[in-house]
Amino acid sequence: MNAAPSLLREAPAVPERRRAELLAALAAVLPPEMILSRREDVTPYESDGLAVYRARPLAVLLPRTEQQVAAALRVCHRLGVPVVARGAGTGLSGGAMPHAQGVVLSLARFDRIVAVDPVRCTAVVQSGVRNIAVSEAAAPHGLYYAPDPSSQIACTIGGNVAENAGGVHCLKYGLTLHNVLKLRGFTVEGEAVEFGGDALDAPGLDLLPLVVGSEGMLAIVTEVTVRLIPRPPLACCIMASFPDVESAGAAVAAVIAAGIIPAGLELMDKRMTAAVEDFVHAGYDLDAAAILLCESDGTAEEVAAEAAHVSAVLRAAGATRIERSRDEAQRLRFWSGRKNAFPASGRISPDYLCMDSTIPRKRLAEVLRAIEAMEQTYGLRCANVFHAGDGNLHPLILFDANDPDQLRRCERFGADILETSVALGGTVTGEHGVGIEKLNSMCVQFSAAERALLGALKRAFDPGELLNPGKVIPTLHRCAEYGKMTVRRGLLPFPHIPRY
Amino acid sequence: MNAAPSLLREAPAVPERRRAELLAALAAVLPPEMILSRREDVTPYESDGLAVYRARPLAVLLPRTEQQVAAALRVCHRLGVPVVARGAGTGLSGGAMPHAQGVVLSLARFDRIVAVDPVRCTAVVQSGVRNIAVSEAAAPHGLYYAPDPSSQIACTIGGNVAENAGGVHCLKYGLTLHNVLKLRGFTVEGEAVEFGGDALDAPGLDLLPLVVGSEGMLAIVTEVTVRLIPRPPLACCIMASFPDVESAGAAVAAVIAAGIIPAGLELMDKRMTAAVEDFVHAGYDLDAAAILLCESDGTAEEVAAEAAHVSAVLRAAGATRIERSRDEAQRLRFWSGRKNAFPASGRISPDYLCMDSTIPRKRLAEVLRAIEAMEQTYGLRCANVFHAGDGNLHPLILFDANDPDQLRRCERFGADILETSVALGGTVTGEHGVGIEKLNSMCVQFSAAERALLGALKRAFDPGELLNPGKVIPTLHRCAEYGKMTVRRGLLPFPHIPRY
Repeated sequence: MNAAPSLLREAPAVPERRRAELLAALAAVLPPEMILSRREDVTPYESDGLAVYRARPLAVLLPRTEQQVAAALRVCHRLGVPVVARGAGTGLSGGAMPHAQGVVLSLARFDRIVAVDPVRCTAVVQSGVRNIAVSEAAAPHGLYYAPDPSSQIACTIGGNVAENAGGVHCLKYGLTLHNVLKLRGFTVEGEAVEFGGDALDAPGLDLLPLVVGSEGMLAIVTEVTVRLIPRPPLACCIMASFPDVESAGAAVAAVIAAGIIPAGLELMDKRMTAAVEDFVHAGYDLDAAAILLCESDGTAEEVAAEAAHVSAVLRAAGATRIERSRDEAQRLRFWSGRKNAFPASGRISPDYLCMDSTIPRKRLAEVLRAIEAMEQTYGLRCANVFHAGDGNLHPLILFDANDPDQLRRCERFGADILETSVALGGTVTGEHGVGIEKLNSMCVQFSAAERALLGALKRAFDPGELLNPGKVIPTLHRCAEYGKMTVRRGLLPFPHIPRY
Repeated sequence: MNAAPSLLREAPAVPERRRAELLAALAAVLPPEMILSRREDVTPYESDGLAVYRARPLAVLLPRTEQQVAAALRVCHRLGVPVVARGAGTGLSGGAMPHAQGVVLSLARFDRIVAVDPVRCTAVVQSGVRNIAVSEAAAPHGLYYAPDPSSQIACTIGGNVAENAGGVHCLKYGLTLHNVLKLRGFTVEGEAVEFGGDALDAPGLDLLPLVVGSEGMLAIVTEVTVRLIPRPPLACCIMASFPDVESAGAAVAAVIAAGIIPAGLELMDKRMTAAVEDFVHAGYDLDAAAILLCESDGTAEEVAAEAAHVSAVLRAAGATRIERSRDEAQRLRFWSGRKNAFPASGRISPDYLCMDSTIPRKRLAEVLRAIEAMEQTYGLRCANVFHAGDGNLHPLILFDANDPDQLRRCERFGADILETSVALGGTVTGEHGVGIEKLNSMCVQFSAAERALLGALKRAFDPGELLNPGKVIPTLHRCAEYGKMTVRRGLLPFPHIPRY
């Protein structure tokens, strides 16, 4: 998505003396090539994958060792300078957007696979290691790392931990949280800390699941121990065609209700398959209003039995055509279409806003109807691609960022999807995090008391609120303002869903 | 275990006026039959399953509605009175031991199954519902609740949540944490609060996994939404005999390393099987130095394939005899022996102390050797029964609580097992929690900075430290005292394990 320059947050009034003091203090603990501070050097770090929100940091740090991370943190803590951690910058909610008075702490150089233990089925990797690289390192042992975000070629394990990233196989194999055993890192004060461990249980309060998904607000993670699982001997992907998106949504609920947990269960509507097919030639049924991709894995017998069961359920749910991948090449083609859905959208629209929310699975058909109605309300098109089995929606709102009115309508469309998800019993995030994008939606998701508790937890780790400040937890003031605004614009109560 | 009267904590100097004020304030919000305050009425609540630690509370409250819980909490909060939540009181670490200046808040009357949803595979139950009752309610739909602590006939879901309880099937199906979707309850101030939800992901910080296992320190839970899973069509249990406990321990690691995740994988040594066999006639091989119980579940084909694979691995690891359950009756007999191991110990010793720690699986053989050596050091016998697949140890130290010297040696033996577990890369709890029992061991497990962080998190929920105070997180002072004591008694550095 192109940058909308009006949203660039210029650093307001950082006194030059303060900036010079920071750079001098950093220069005392890091070699010069690890500190970027010239305007042209920091520009590439002004945003993450949510490029519509941008800010220019005072400096970008590129440490290579844990000692350097600790030293940089101690400097920033002493001077009260905000620190925003960054992996590959592929995040989609602005979680790695810099702070205009702070530094970006890039973990990109923490790219070493420390150990792969094929007996314990674990790998120890530094946080800047790319997701796919973990599975590549494990492959000689017949093992792999299960969570597979679409950006897995680029995104880092550290970023995955920060966002509790998912992927198409998380329905069966769990999110990042379920595949991480231990984290090593540093507190805001630069103290070494570990969360989780080699044993199954954590004594007292279990901090590992709190830090996973905490979007850089609690600690800086430098090393991650992940669980590896055996690569199943066989996998097979079914593509099922449906005459409308609602019956496809209902079919998803039917599969799960039949007691089947497929290795993946994804939904794409016609607008999406058309865009993708031109781009990657996945072999999708372009006559279908929506398709489901449903994967089975295991032994040949297990796959045959599950695929037959899935096919019967899908047919009973109204599938008009069912195609089973004949071989591994075709299976990978089916998935490559899904994994390239976001970039493919660039072919049908100058810009898109990828939303990310989660709803109870059985309400998929309802939310699809509601999104259709919103297209009329906001006068914008939406392409749908869902981790349907998880109830995790990724509607892509298509718009032109150079048209300020379209941008405003797009933001409202997105907020409406999120708030509708909450009203349906869901949440405002799935796997992309809250970041800066969904601060307002957090006002809808949580009560003032609940937000106060989140703030108190944040301050238990980071009393001075220096780690990724201004993200994830909205202020009372912001929520009050948002309440006024949404009432004014008539978005509350949600027009698209029945009251109950 | 019999009470050792010397450990009863008499309420020291609670002014009668303060006590009268509390009872009057409670009487204003709860009907009289829900407030127990006479000595004979509160006596049954003086301890939980760790009966060696006892205290007499000012009152025991037995509310039936959420409004009553909230009102009672508000009274206690206003008056600064500690509140200790209690389920069935089957806990083994003293987590529900009363506070001598506080009240016990029993959730026993929250015993209603609110809803079972066979399509979403969930159940909503009040926190006083017994563990087994959830599976009974789900059974007509072919579903069950997976975590199965040995006390499942008596223990409550609320207690399971407080302790993040496990069970013999948690190796494959996860701990309580992995089977709970949502909690409803109240903060220390009596404010209604929810953790988790119906969707897969939690926006911002995920508090559900923090509250699960928090031992009543963060909130009072009144309602729990659990995941139900389909009852597998078939299950089969293998009993394998080993000539020594170490080869049995090594066999456990071999099974997991072969890529098999059995539905259960338990180890019992000869002292344990002998005690159990007299009691329940489980059909155990009494000639074996140790036996493993290994369960496979799934379709008939899956069970046949896995059982054959397991048998081959166990034989290669030195099993001298392998017996497979012929039918469901025999399978249940095998497990009934395991589930009755704790009570059966009462037949071979006047008292026992059940320890609970976790180690990396591959170090099972080492820890078994270390415990054997400790039997000599402390002059006490130990019977071993382990959730071996999880690396979760339950050594039962046999002693006579009426002999103060034996009691002292037993406590030191227990502490030595826990600290050895930490030194081997494990933790001081598995599934029984820290409670009052393992406060000292937390000094060994965590650094001062880590314990400070745990305390800050506790205070984020409960600034006045009224919820189950004095449990789980040891004070700095206590750890300093413990450090001196352990150095004095020569337990540090751990004598039983190699340095590395």
